[in-house]
Amino acid sequence: MPGASCLNVTLLGCGVVGSAVARGLVMQSDALAARAGAFLRLHAIVVRDPAEVTDPEIPRDVISTDAAAALDGADLVIELFGGIEPARTLIRQAFQNGASVVTANKALLAAHGPELFEAADAAGVDLYYEAAVGGAIPIVRPMRESLAGDNVRRVLGIVNGTTNYVLDRMAADGLTLADAVAQAQALGYAEADPTADVEGHDAAAKAAILASLAFHTRVSAADVACEGIMAVTAEDVAWAARTGHVIKLLATAERVGEGVSAYVHPTLVPADHQLASVRGAFNAVFVEAESAGPLMFFGQGAGGTPTSSAVLGDLVSVARHRVNGGMGPRESAAASWPILPASAATTSFQIRLTVADRPGVLAQVAGALAEHGVSIDSVRQPSARQSAPSPSGATAAPATCDTDTTQLLITTHPATEAALTATVEAVATLDSVGAVVSVLRVLTT
Amino acid sequence: MPGASCLNVTLLGCGVVGSAVARGLVMQSDALAARAGAFLRLHAIVVRDPAEVTDPEIPRDVISTDAAAALDGADLVIELFGGIEPARTLIRQAFQNGASVVTANKALLAAHGPELFEAADAAGVDLYYEAAVGGAIPIVRPMRESLAGDNVRRVLGIVNGTTNYVLDRMAADGLTLADAVAQAQALGYAEADPTADVEGHDAAAKAAILASLAFHTRVSAADVACEGIMAVTAEDVAWAARTGHVIKLLATAERVGEGVSAYVHPTLVPADHQLASVRGAFNAVFVEAESAGPLMFFGQGAGGTPTSSAVLGDLVSVARHRVNGGMGPRESAAASWPILPASAATTSFQIRLTVADRPGVLAQVAGALAEHGVSIDSVRQPSARQSAPSPSGATAAPATCDTDTTQLLITTHPATEAALTATVEAVATLDSVGAVVSVLRVLTT
Repeated sequence: MPGASCLNVTLLGCGVVGSAVARGLVMQSDALAARAGAFLRLHAIVVRDPAEVTDPEIPRDVISTDAAAALDGADLVIELFGGIEPARTLIRQAFQNGASVVTANKALLAAHGPELFEAADAAGVDLYYEAAVGGAIPIVRPMRESLAGDNVRRVLGIVNGTTNYVLDRMAADGLTLADAVAQAQALGYAEADPTADVEGHDAAAKAAILASLAFHTRVSAADVACEGIMAVTAEDVAWAARTGHVIKLLATAERVGEGVSAYVHPTLVPADHQLASVRGAFNAVFVEAESAGPLMFFGQGAGGTPTSSAVLGDLVSVARHRVNGGMGPRESAAASWPILPASAATTSFQIRLTVADRPGVLAQVAGALAEHGVSIDSVRQPSARQSAPSPSGATAAPATCDTDTTQLLITTHPATEAALTATVEAVATLDSVGAVVSVLRVLTT
Repeated sequence: MPGASCLNVTLLGCGVVGSAVARGLVMQSDALAARAGAFLRLHAIVVRDPAEVTDPEIPRDVISTDAAAALDGADLVIELFGGIEPARTLIRQAFQNGASVVTANKALLAAHGPELFEAADAAGVDLYYEAAVGGAIPIVRPMRESLAGDNVRRVLGIVNGTTNYVLDRMAADGLTLADAVAQAQALGYAEADPTADVEGHDAAAKAAILASLAFHTRVSAADVACEGIMAVTAEDVAWAARTGHVIKLLATAERVGEGVSAYVHPTLVPADHQLASVRGAFNAVFVEAESAGPLMFFGQGAGGTPTSSAVLGDLVSVARHRVNGGMGPRESAAASWPILPASAATTSFQIRLTVADRPGVLAQVAGALAEHGVSIDSVRQPSARQSAPSPSGATAAPATCDTDTTQLLITTHPATEAALTATVEAVATLDSVGAVVSVLRVLTT
């Protein structure tokens, strides 16, 4: 309805983000109207239990438990239920009613994005989702529009604030993973059940969305290899610091040969990389594009009020299209690169071993790596007592401790995961090797 | 012409950015067509002297010196001449012809933006300008669209790569300003005549554009108080480091009471602030918004290929509107906040004085500040020999040097510029004060 002076907005969900969005609609109505070109009228708020909505700024007379009725007469729908159903069915219903939709639902988009984009397109309406990745950070719109004239090579995202907070506390205060998670829970940075965060599933959904945008290719969460932070130990974090790194859970999407690959892994990030300075629960997305070069987008990745900024920004955009005609960009999937497994990508690895403290061990280990075509960038062999790092690249430093075993820290040149796995298996069987303590990817720049 | 399968693009200017844009149009034509929904045909390139265009990828048969003829038949015009005329007249002509325009011309927009936005609006076409601020960094689109549902409180931009490079070299290598500028020139980071950069005029134009976007208010370059880096000495830079700061040339736009203010100043940025880590010729824009909180956008602020990324992204956007109907956001100036002078803003200052090395001096200086209502946050009084910083906040440390004068470093609580100016004048007349060596603003967070 071009020229409309009032648009009806239905809000599905009124949790922490929904409440902030509803408050914004009510309290910023004049500014929003000036920017959208129409008054954005809060038509209905759909919740399971009306008693849950306690914010006094939110008008009670629009609260409903009947989603179908609330969609009726809506020009714009904001979906904040999360999860697959009933969100998926309601969004499709909104499109059929001719409404544009704004959603923050990363899980739904990463699982059923193409179906929803096609439905929006068929109905001639918009589907906007800035809040689905990086909370308040404008990243979807820049990827979808600003970089439309460029070719993205790689995207590296710290897109889960919970795990970034946990890793940051481990690094800053020497906490164990369990203690850091407990602290995150106490401060509201982690859910009572932190599984989706610490196992990387939340980051994987966002990686799929970023990969789809970056490479104009449909990538779903199922395409994203996913490893969380459960196996990261306080010792890993301390060793990372000694070698000039911080451990970050990175959602990576990259061009690999004639395909694309997306994965989530704890990664050793060099301390002087822009991503290393992303502290606490903050998020950041680092984009490497052919023409633009490196770009970084930084901000709050979660929280009701920050996320409401992204939702309301989208709402103004889709409202403008209602007022002035036109539509936002459609799904861009024309490139359709083949999706390659994460193992196709080459990465540097840092392997930490316990080894017998005797001469010749390094030669044996190095031989095993060479046999599998994995070349060594540097080796550190600190004594058991040593707390400061050995000089970078030192090889076969004489052991100075009085125990029978010592640790060996090997950083490889970029190798495929397949080669690395075979190498680690071979190394583990050497008689001089006690155990492979950890294997971590190293961000190569 | 909705549904067009081919759009004619005329390029005004073929310097370092124009050449990269022309190359992109030719070499990425398939990807651009897929994303725009129409083939973007290079219709004409207008230059003063055709011999200047030497890139073998750029077709010679579209090169022309006749701008009026080249605008004829153009659906989309890219203006990269820079400066006021003939760019202003040609852009208005393009609008009259019904063409949408993409420009990187910050000086023109900061001087005549409202006139051009109105002309675009009257013609029903787009005026896009992502490349005018921050080169490759998507910042205009996020401010114009992503933050349309939020209220920006302050924008802090490192938006001039030349001065950031110069200040970075001074800090990293202890160079003088003149030597650092010479190095920047040798490396192509500074023009042969670096005036527009080092005097802050380039940053002021960008501050005006950022302020206009942030506050939905028309702000022109003439409204921006502007101080460049000419007065910054190697000693200032060294002192900044001692007090845990780096000096950055910041373009600031902020809400002040019931108005807005924009200014460009060398500023002491705390070393742990995100902006402090912006090294070399990189740019970054830090935005503080009411709901989103802090956001930062980082990347390359200049250079032909990076800037072409922003130009081509805009070109795809305006082309999509041609294909699918609709228009991008218009100028948003409904808030129309009064523009206040920079002196209305309150800032902390760091004042460095040479004083007589005798008891009672600090009391005298502190008294002069108190008389003008400027309160002191900390005082440092290092000995002349001392190279390490005094403990933070130390007051009246006994002088330990054997000279007759020493330095006093006073950091104030936030004060108005008017109060500060009066204070500095009063301090300078004290018999115990040799000279006010420097007065620098401190970024308050």
